[in-house]
This record gives sequence, structure tokens and C-alpha cells, in this order.
Amino acid sequence: MTMRTDVGRRPAPDGWRHPLSSDSVLPKDCPSRVVLDHVTSKWGLLVLVALEGGTLRWSELRRMVEGVSEKMLAQTLQTLERDGFVLRQAQPSIPPRVDYSLTGRGHEVVRLLLPLMEWIGGNAAQILGLPETHPAS
Amino acid sequence: MTMRTDVGRRPAPDGWRHPLSSDSVLPKDCPSRVVLDHVTSKWGLLVLVALEGGTLRWSELRRMVEGVSEKMLAQTLQTLERDGFVLRQAQPSIPPRVDYSLTGRGHEVVRLLLPLMEWIGGNAAQILGLPETHPAS
Repeated sequence: MTMRTDVGRRPAPDGWRHPLSSDSVLPKDCPSRVVLDHVTSKWGLLVLVALEGGTLRWSELRRMVEGVSEKMLAQTLQTLERDGFVLRQAQPSIPPRVDYSLTGRGHEVVRLLLPLMEWIGGNAAQILGLPETHPAS
Repeated sequence: MTMRTDVGRRPAPDGWRHPLSSDSVLPKDCPSRVVLDHVTSKWGLLVLVALEGGTLRWSELRRMVEGVSEKMLAQTLQTLERDGFVLRQAQPSIPPRVDYSLTGRGHEVVRLLLPLMEWIGGNAAQILGLPETHPAS
């Protein structure tokens, strides 16, 4: 589908051209808002990017996505799995093991997130007015 | 700066290659996390994309970014202004008027957000398992 435009809403001001639709950003009840929330939620985004590196187990994900609580990681993975971005595979091993990986759709969306993450990585210190940091010094 | 890698943290599992840095997504205390939160917060993102269409007043922004409260819009604009993404210009008119627009840095980041928004717009219904919607029918 294309972005829904709400026909009954007031028109955009003169001279204002929206890059995505004619007279609104995403309307409140648009499915795009829901998916956008899932993909760009604090933890959703970091989990997706973490999995771009390859399959990870729960404990590995927990460590990579530093700061995430067990509860939030569980909720985030559930949402991403339901949306078809993440594949959860319980391995029939002893001890039991669960692997998480990106689906094709997951890779597709991460490819769109990475340029943003890279730009932010390269500009964050300047944006926040911090001195440049050099990890090894 | 480049993405900070936390030297003291446990290494990534074998075979796991992170696309952005060697052994972590963004570390918890990294400035990138802060800026990422600002740019991808629910309202931050929608405000940035709304302003890509051109200068907007408060009331216009409030209408475009459907569902945002006065308080959240004020907070969001303040954060985006402090980060140098949004320019706030009080016009010396009667009645008083305040215009909001993107700075060069704001345009830069929105250019990275738009492909994501477009992809989500085109895939959201399918992701959520909804029937395709056609606004005018």
C-alpha cells in the first residue's frame, strides 16, 4: 500500500509539500505508524542492527544490546518476530539453546537503518557539543 | 568520531561480525545512543519528516504530526533545536508567529530517514497482516 492520506483532514498550508504524501506525515491510525514504532523503538532498532552481524543467542543479544533489561529484550524480540523481521529457532540441544537471526525482511529494513546509524555515529559528539573521544587513548 | 568500542567488554561470539563496530552495537554511554534516541523518538522522527516539506508554524506542525500533545511537541522541538536539527524563528509580526524549519543538519538526517519511511509505508499493511487500504475507495 502507499501512505494513507486522510481525506477529511485540513489541507496542508500553502507552499508546503510533503515528501511522502500530500497533506500529512503518517496519520495516527496508519499501519505505518505501528511498524515505524516497532522498528525505531530504542531497543527494536539496536536489536535489529545487532542481528545484522549474524545469528545470536539470547545471552549474546543481551550483552550486545547493552543496557536492555530481560523484560524489554523479550518484548522487543516478540514484536520483531511477529512482524517477520526476526526468526527465533529453538535448537534441540542439551542444554537448550535459542538462536535469533534476521529474516529477509529484517535484512531489508536494517539496510535502511545502517546509513542513519553510521551518520549518527560520525556526528553525535559534535551534535551534543562533546569533545571527540578516542577509545584507546 | 567513530563509534566507540568498549575495550573492557567481553568480545563478540565467534563468527559474529558487526557492521558498525567490532564487538558491540552502540555502547550504553555512547553519545550516538543519545542522538539516536532524539532522532528516532516517535515524535522526533515525525516532526523531522514533517519539516522536510518546508517551514511550518506551531499549529501547523501540531496538525501534521497527528496525535502529538502540546507538551510532547514542545519537548520534541526543544530537543531538536538544541541538537541543531531545527531552527526556531520568532517573527516580529502581530499576532506573534513562530516558524520552525530544518537546518542543513536537519535536512541531512531526514534524507537518511526518508528511505526507511518509504519502505515502511509500502510494507506496513503486509507486515501487520492487514488488507491493503485504498483511501479514496
